[in-house]
Amino acid sequence: MSGADLSRLSLNTATVKHADLRTAVDAAASAGYGAVGLWRDRVQEVGAERAARIVAEAGLRVSSLCRGGFLTAADDAGVEAALDDNRRAIDEAATVGTRELVFVVGGLSGSSPGGPPGAATDRDLVATRSRVADRLAELAPFAEARGVRIALEPLHPVFAADRAVISTLAQALDLAAPFAPGAVGVVVDTYHVWWDPELRAGVARAGREGRLACYQVCDWILPLASDALLSRGHVGDGYVDFAAVTTWVADAGYRGDVEVEIFNETVWDAPVAATVATVAERWERHVAPHLAPSPGAGMRLLDAPGERP
Amino acid sequence: MSGADLSRLSLNTATVKHADLRTAVDAAASAGYGAVGLWRDRVQEVGAERAARIVAEAGLRVSSLCRGGFLTAADDAGVEAALDDNRRAIDEAATVGTRELVFVVGGLSGSSPGGPPGAATDRDLVATRSRVADRLAELAPFAEARGVRIALEPLHPVFAADRAVISTLAQALDLAAPFAPGAVGVVVDTYHVWWDPELRAGVARAGREGRLACYQVCDWILPLASDALLSRGHVGDGYVDFAAVTTWVADAGYRGDVEVEIFNETVWDAPVAATVATVAERWERHVAPHLAPSPGAGMRLLDAPGERP
Repeated sequence: MSGADLSRLSLNTATVKHADLRTAVDAAASAGYGAVGLWRDRVQEVGAERAARIVAEAGLRVSSLCRGGFLTAADDAGVEAALDDNRRAIDEAATVGTRELVFVVGGLSGSSPGGPPGAATDRDLVATRSRVADRLAELAPFAEARGVRIALEPLHPVFAADRAVISTLAQALDLAAPFAPGAVGVVVDTYHVWWDPELRAGVARAGREGRLACYQVCDWILPLASDALLSRGHVGDGYVDFAAVTTWVADAGYRGDVEVEIFNETVWDAPVAATVATVAERWERHVAPHLAPSPGAGMRLLDAPGERP
Repeated sequence: MSGADLSRLSLNTATVKHADLRTAVDAAASAGYGAVGLWRDRVQEVGAERAARIVAEAGLRVSSLCRGGFLTAADDAGVEAALDDNRRAIDEAATVGTRELVFVVGGLSGSSPGGPPGAATDRDLVATRSRVADRLAELAPFAEARGVRIALEPLHPVFAADRAVISTLAQALDLAAPFAPGAVGVVVDTYHVWWDPELRAGVARAGREGRLACYQVCDWILPLASDALLSRGHVGDGYVDFAAVTTWVADAGYRGDVEVEIFNETVWDAPVAATVATVAERWERHVAPHLAPSPGAGMRLLDAPGERP
């Protein structure tokens, strides 16, 4: 243990996929982390109320619940099922004690993750994106009434067909725009957005609009895993410029927890304590030094319209 | 043979990777194609002047030469080597008789395609993109003097680390903006840009600005091949909405050849005649019906500033 300040570091439970909730929470707390990000599977195993107690008794915060979404269905039954599941996710977020519910909105209707298009696949991306806006209008009031924010996560365009038709931060912000900043926000996950030439502007806009709900870090590594979803690497192992992106996020006024969320078979096979130590070490080296806003950034933020304190 | 009008269909030689130039050209001409897109390896095997004769004697046009670029090096020797190679590519384009030289600009300096980052990898994406602008300023006058246009190709963000730091059409247009439309244009390749929420606006802008240099079609298929570069499928086999994108391209005023460029081991292993027939059949079904501009699109184009006839 280095004794560094890890109070803004959050362990997303997906990073230690094979650990149950208590094991993950205890490992994060022992290492000095300030928070955990919870996946719904780990919450549902013990129930949301008990999950809340496990985290609170360890002295941690819940930085986010992952995940709602998958609401691109075009048929009535699919729409109703998605709305029902997302209302449950919103209630779970409120119960575990987080304001931020991460939304991965889903791919083209009829697509199956990672598989070839089926006969029923709808290739109309414009219409699919429009349905996402419709579903948000139905869910946002329900979330807002429970003190939960829908945090729209743009996914890397490699997942546009089968997992998320939101591909850029600007697009997520446009979809969030009709709603209050407390009802619909956005996620910045370095793996998904690092390549975006408009990223700096998008992060600044998210800050100005008060919608920067969650900052997640992990690296883009090559070669891609056979399942691209599992190609996420430890911070520092790949191509992401964490100094730049973290500075932009800090300058946009983000003062929340920073989640480390890594899907990677090799990481999952490592002992939990080793993973938690590596995550902390990489965070100290590549992320923490850049979390203080640049001189003048706060002034610029306060000058900008629409910011929140 | 269906007897359909294939006069705007162009066979990119990469689609029949294992065929030499004459075999590819003869297959395209026999099937009734109007053009071929040439890769430099096939041109260099016979020499640019002889390549020009082979295509002309078959009665075809050269829709583009692929490819220049890879100019993101940060060191003096790397910069000079890139400039030298690109000047040769510009001369080859002029000699084979095409106006359009496709540019894949290269990835992060020090990265190797598909491999892990090395110690020398520069993760500063902003600076890398800035170097692309500098190299364009050095090459554009040379190209323009030879009647060749540098056609910037945005590549799918899955290739941002190791192959092309131009990831969107808007970014390509911003990089092209300082130069005359006849000196620097852009490529729309469905595989690379289909996911972009700003694609329709970008295609329209490319048309207004007179920079729509090349339209290439192939499909986004899943699961990804182990080398993502080889995950391109025949039109209709994947997730791309060719009706929508082709209509946008037609409405933007594009009247040039449409290249089919497929990197795919299975396609490469098929007999050349079979591939050429499949390409033609898919083109007739999914692309050709949408190449006529929508009613009023021409009027809108003529109303817009900066268009070319």
